Amino acid sequence: SKRYSITLLPGDGIGPEVISVAKNVLILAGSLEGIEFNFQEMPMGGSALDLVGVPLPDETLLAAKKSDAVLLGAIGGYKWDKNEKHLKPETGLLQLREGLEVFANLRPATVLPQLVDASTLKKEVAEGVDVMVVRELTGGIYFGKPRGFGTNEDGEEIGFNTEVYATYEVDRIARVAFETARKRHGKLCSVDKANVLEASMFWRKRVIAVAAEYPDVELSHMYVDNAAMQLVRNPKQFDTIMTNNIFGDILSDEASMITGSIGMLPSASLGSSGPGLFEPIHGSAPDIANQDKANPLATVLSAAMLLKYGLGEENAAKRIENAVLDTLNKGFRTGDIYSAGNKLVGCKEMGEEVLKSV
Amino acid sequence: SKRYSITLLPGDGIGPEVISVAKNVLILAGSLEGIEFNFQEMPMGGSALDLVGVPLPDETLLAAKKSDAVLLGAIGGYKWDKNEKHLKPETGLLQLREGLEVFANLRPATVLPQLVDASTLKKEVAEGVDVMVVRELTGGIYFGKPRGFGTNEDGEEIGFNTEVYATYEVDRIARVAFETARKRHGKLCSVDKANVLEASMFWRKRVIAVAAEYPDVELSHMYVDNAAMQLVRNPKQFDTIMTNNIFGDILSDEASMITGSIGMLPSASLGSSGPGLFEPIHGSAPDIANQDKANPLATVLSAAMLLKYGLGEENAAKRIENAVLDTLNKGFRTGDIYSAGNKLVGCKEMGEEVLKSV
Ligand SMILES: CC(C)[C@H](C(=O)O)[C@@H](O)C(=O)O
Ligand SMILES: CC(C)[C@H](C(=O)O)[C@@H](O)C(=O)O
Repeated sequence: SKRYSITLLPGDGIGPEVISVAKNVLILAGSLEGIEFNFQEMPMGGSALDLVGVPLPDETLLAAKKSDAVLLGAIGGYKWDKNEKHLKPETGLLQLREGLEVFANLRPATVLPQLVDASTLKKEVAEGVDVMVVRELTGGIYFGKPRGFGTNEDGEEIGFNTEVYATYEVDRIARVAFETARKRHGKLCSVDKANVLEASMFWRKRVIAVAAEYPDVELSHMYVDNAAMQLVRNPKQFDTIMTNNIFGDILSDEASMITGSIGMLPSASLGSSGPGLFEPIHGSAPDIANQDKANPLATVLSAAMLLKYGLGEENAAKRIENAVLDTLNKGFRTGDIYSAGNKLVGCKEMGEEVLKSV
Repeated sequence: SKRYSITLLPGDGIGPEVISVAKNVLILAGSLEGIEFNFQEMPMGGSALDLVGVPLPDETLLAAKKSDAVLLGAIGGYKWDKNEKHLKPETGLLQLREGLEVFANLRPATVLPQLVDASTLKKEVAEGVDVMVVRELTGGIYFGKPRGFGTNEDGEEIGFNTEVYATYEVDRIARVAFETARKRHGKLCSVDKANVLEASMFWRKRVIAVAAEYPDVELSHMYVDNAAMQLVRNPKQFDTIMTNNIFGDILSDEASMITGSIGMLPSASLGSSGPGLFEPIHGSAPDIANQDKANPLATVLSAAMLLKYGLGEENAAKRIENAVLDTLNKGFRTGDIYSAGNKLVGCKEMGEEVLKSV
């Protein structure tokens, strides 16, 4: 039987609860497909700050790098919000992305027929939405240098960052995006602000160059302000969207909220080689932590992405995806996606119900 | 009687049609309040490119600077989309904003009861939405230096921009935002990405410093990705939003689409002194240009903002705002906001109907 080593990073808030559910689901789906896992749990985020004083301990990054895939719960919380930058949980996450070189962040935003009412959009606008946002994750203004604080010519204090992309960075994310679009409906929309920013003009130029390798994919370009509008006006027009780190941060969250159920949405962050990083897109929700109220399905679906994109284990992934759909079809709902006529369950019970269908 | 000089910049596409309507409305509303206008029409955008080879001729900027207020239609079109940066219509707009030093861009996004069905959001989510976005307009990544193209240490081609804010820039936009919130419902939400960007940390620090001058305004902070979500989830939570140039570009367009009727939305761009710039937020819509199909109401309402914010002529402004509401109440609709049971009219007829109610 096959063996994989998985680093689990429960993190903060509801992180440990949802990771515990996803771990059990992984074990069962794996065993039914002849797969075994070695799990190693490591501290990260606020809990690592409390434990050892840094948001990403060296041991955690090392363990993550050595493993076959990394599953993260969630990080952050009020407690650490006022910390200096290098002592913020978020900084640990950025260091992890950089350390694993996971430059391609895949964020599906799908409206499931079972949950179409959860969207704030009208039913006819929301139903059938199925967008994949491919976000560049280790470049752009998040990591660009120079950055920091200083003074300008007039002696005024300033704060500054650099948005910068190099050929190889755009080319590699473009290839992931074209490959992704090819496996979906063959349509790729690259989002930029090329009417104003040189970094975006460069981005667009490279995307067009790479497009020559993918004549079967239909490429379009859209300005980011228009994309933010079109996601509200008619999200069904999109198949695959590719964009830079900061625009991807904004648009993927907007797209996820359009589904109305961010407690359901997984993500995958992939590099050229080495382990991928898989995590729900929701936050650590400190206000409901330790109350057995969290929706574990985003993390369970992240485990499915881990199997599919991280390990190439499509069958085990399908088992999990189907188990989630079955569980929804049976009417089980956590509070965040509850609507009248369904069965309200907690995090643990939701996990047990999924296990029954794996 | 009072006299004001107004520079009209019809621009491209539907620009001339909507400006012509707004001009007539201004003349009538003014005359009823003892106000006379000198209008000077100047070329700008694509039409200026065709005429004299630059998107903002010196004469246009000079005329604008000398006048009491500037009313712009719309700029841009497919014809000039492939132009080099300095020959793009958009570049003319950025030069105009910079030249007039209009650093504060006010963009209301209001869902009118008459048009609540136009929103793609569910009625209960959309009705009553009334958000004012105060966007910084002459700084940040739009204008920051260094910018351009080059090579990195590895000899790879790069494109780059600088996001930068200085004390005086944040302080002055913050004051406009606090004053605006004070005149509305006293709630200001500053949107940034202070968990990642130094420019945003600096922004937040200065906003907090300026807040001391406005103890009556309730200040909150939100990350831009969350703001993009919250605008979809529950836009009614917002009163006044303040944010930087690029986040404001994205969020104000998202907010405007939430109203469902961007053909209705005006904007004002103001400096510390000198004339303000007033324009509809919609584009030049080249596909419907010269067909008498455009909705002139966003430009008419921009003329109302010109009277109110640009000239301090509140009564004349109110006349126009009420005339627009009357016209909608009578059921007149251009194609973009048409729904069954109403009367479909063209751009000119809509203008004539508004005149009847001024
Ligand atoms: C927590 C934060 C640093 C992070 C980001 O901005 O990338 C988050 O918003 C995300 O999208 O994963
Ligand atoms: C046309 C473009 C340069 C402009 C901007 O990005 O500011 C537009 O999108 C706007 O919001 O007024």
